[in-house]
Amino acid sequence: MFSIFDTQMMLRALELAKRGIYTTAPNPNVGCVITQGDDIVGEGFHFRAGEPHAEVHALQAAGEKARGATAYVTLEPCSHHGRTPPCADALVAAGVSRVICSMVDPNPKVAGRGIKRMRDAGIQVEVGLMQAQAEALNPGFIKVMKTGLPFVQLKLASSLDGRTALANGQSKWITGAEARADVQAFRAQASAILSTSQTVLDDNPSLNVRWEELPDAVKAEYAQDDLRQPARVILDTQRKVSEHAHLFSLEGDVIIVTASQADSDNDAYKVLTVAKDSGKLDLNITMRALASDGISHIWVEAGATLAGSLLNAGLVDEMIVYQAPKLMGIDSRGLVNLKGMTCMNQVPTFELTDVTCIGNDVRLRMQKPQSE
Amino acid sequence: MFSIFDTQMMLRALELAKRGIYTTAPNPNVGCVITQGDDIVGEGFHFRAGEPHAEVHALQAAGEKARGATAYVTLEPCSHHGRTPPCADALVAAGVSRVICSMVDPNPKVAGRGIKRMRDAGIQVEVGLMQAQAEALNPGFIKVMKTGLPFVQLKLASSLDGRTALANGQSKWITGAEARADVQAFRAQASAILSTSQTVLDDNPSLNVRWEELPDAVKAEYAQDDLRQPARVILDTQRKVSEHAHLFSLEGDVIIVTASQADSDNDAYKVLTVAKDSGKLDLNITMRALASDGISHIWVEAGATLAGSLLNAGLVDEMIVYQAPKLMGIDSRGLVNLKGMTCMNQVPTFELTDVTCIGNDVRLRMQKPQSE
Repeated sequence: MFSIFDTQMMLRALELAKRGIYTTAPNPNVGCVITQGDDIVGEGFHFRAGEPHAEVHALQAAGEKARGATAYVTLEPCSHHGRTPPCADALVAAGVSRVICSMVDPNPKVAGRGIKRMRDAGIQVEVGLMQAQAEALNPGFIKVMKTGLPFVQLKLASSLDGRTALANGQSKWITGAEARADVQAFRAQASAILSTSQTVLDDNPSLNVRWEELPDAVKAEYAQDDLRQPARVILDTQRKVSEHAHLFSLEGDVIIVTASQADSDNDAYKVLTVAKDSGKLDLNITMRALASDGISHIWVEAGATLAGSLLNAGLVDEMIVYQAPKLMGIDSRGLVNLKGMTCMNQVPTFELTDVTCIGNDVRLRMQKPQSE
Repeated sequence: MFSIFDTQMMLRALELAKRGIYTTAPNPNVGCVITQGDDIVGEGFHFRAGEPHAEVHALQAAGEKARGATAYVTLEPCSHHGRTPPCADALVAAGVSRVICSMVDPNPKVAGRGIKRMRDAGIQVEVGLMQAQAEALNPGFIKVMKTGLPFVQLKLASSLDGRTALANGQSKWITGAEARADVQAFRAQASAILSTSQTVLDDNPSLNVRWEELPDAVKAEYAQDDLRQPARVILDTQRKVSEHAHLFSLEGDVIIVTASQADSDNDAYKVLTVAKDSGKLDLNITMRALASDGISHIWVEAGATLAGSLLNAGLVDEMIVYQAPKLMGIDSRGLVNLKGMTCMNQVPTFELTDVTCIGNDVRLRMQKPQSE
């Protein structure tokens, strides 16, 4: 059904789409390549919400050469009027004769309507080329559309023996500057950084993206103004965080999630009031509420307690663990607050997807087993 | 000084030497290539103590073509009569005109005498090509010769959060079958496996090499009879291990290290009596005594207490850590018994040398920083 040439062109479209990973939120990353015979006549990718979609950029580049051409798109072209007109209509109007898309748009506003509109206009449409790779471009967008929950990445950092601080709380620094730069790159891709009042009270952190700390490879490809600050979401059940906390003074939204009814939106932050479950904020409700608020991709940086609660609630899609080749010993603080397991088959087990050396540390990425 | 051809030939000699890593102990691994012009005319490696050295195999293969040839040897040819006659003499007698060796033999019985003997006979001798790689072939042999201490590898296995068993002691299995096969391959290369009376009392382990559990790659290259059983060394300060422990019933030597004067060599085991230091066996004295006994390369498999004591004593040369992508939580048992650190700069830090996925687990290898 798909030729080697088709695969090569879709690979190119996927590469183009990736250029938007720091900038498109809350929109998905999409790339598009238009070919006439063996030649690429137009390319494009979505860069920022409100700006033209990938297909529009590619059609503009192709101009008259789009007539009778083939378009490769990493996501089904849209059929609805959002901030820009429907791309399916634009492809029809340009006279494209064949469209290959990696995946159907899981957005219920589209969900096959784009494909139908193009087919009704006589375009030959094929779907499913490199679908897994296309899905990996937009884990948050897809998860929200399919489940109403955001895609959650849990960041952990420890010594080799799973310790995050000495008994007296000292922890600066376990991992090296390269690992911390890598964390900045993950933060920059997320819609929000999630932490807790305890972390804010203990460390008074910024929880933001700092241009000067990003990896050189990111700084080489983007201008400082291109990047956005992810929202900071603080779980603060009893509203303990003071308005003088450092994070309120920095650019970007702050959302306080609380069970308290005594606080409301103001200049410094938005308030999300959530019911409690066994004395703690209900994490499922919290996640659904954040997704409804446009937050599809959450990067969690917190302590052992929230890590354990999220794991227990089955809300973690991916763990990203930075390990330093150090040993901190058995009276140092532990990584994840899971308790009371009595049998090895109760132990949460993950699938390793990537192991990479970052400076003198190791980064392990793992996800829930596919079978779950 | 050395040509690309020289480097290629020494690489070949290093590859040949590696074929002995499971069999040559207590002798070093050595490889030899003999060339005439651009042609390899003889190759050899040392396979087992008492059998011919690498140079002898290569000279036999070269025959008359050794006259005027160049020999590449990964270690200085020996100058003393051991179980076989001196290789330096054999190279002279064969009429070799140039010898390149990676490193001087650290054995004080050789230590440059082999090189001198060849130079005195008119052979052009050059030293130092790929010395670091040649040293890595024989870490135990070199460390004993230079320091009187054996090369010590500490094996650790844990969950991602550095836990070795649930609170109730359950631990089967944290790592997978592939990781356990990898452990068998490391055991098979060591002169001895070191453990403690506590581990023997808790687990009644075999601590041996089991042919059927070795990785397929090892079984493909060796016959079962080629491999030897490393000695099992048990630290048993107060002589608590019963003579009915499983390990005494298996092939291979057992050495009981104890502070008790009440035990002596018998059919089942040898006894090494060692002084105590602060109530525990003096580990430095233990290691020196083992090295004197011909044990140059020790593979440690024990619990968090011995691991911590060896690390505190600075006796660990390499750590090999198997990590399973699992989380066992903060009430599970810790990896290394190090206590009382109050400042991050007291934390033992290592240099990662290798990170490899073994089945669904990760193996990290690390060594003491070079600067120490």
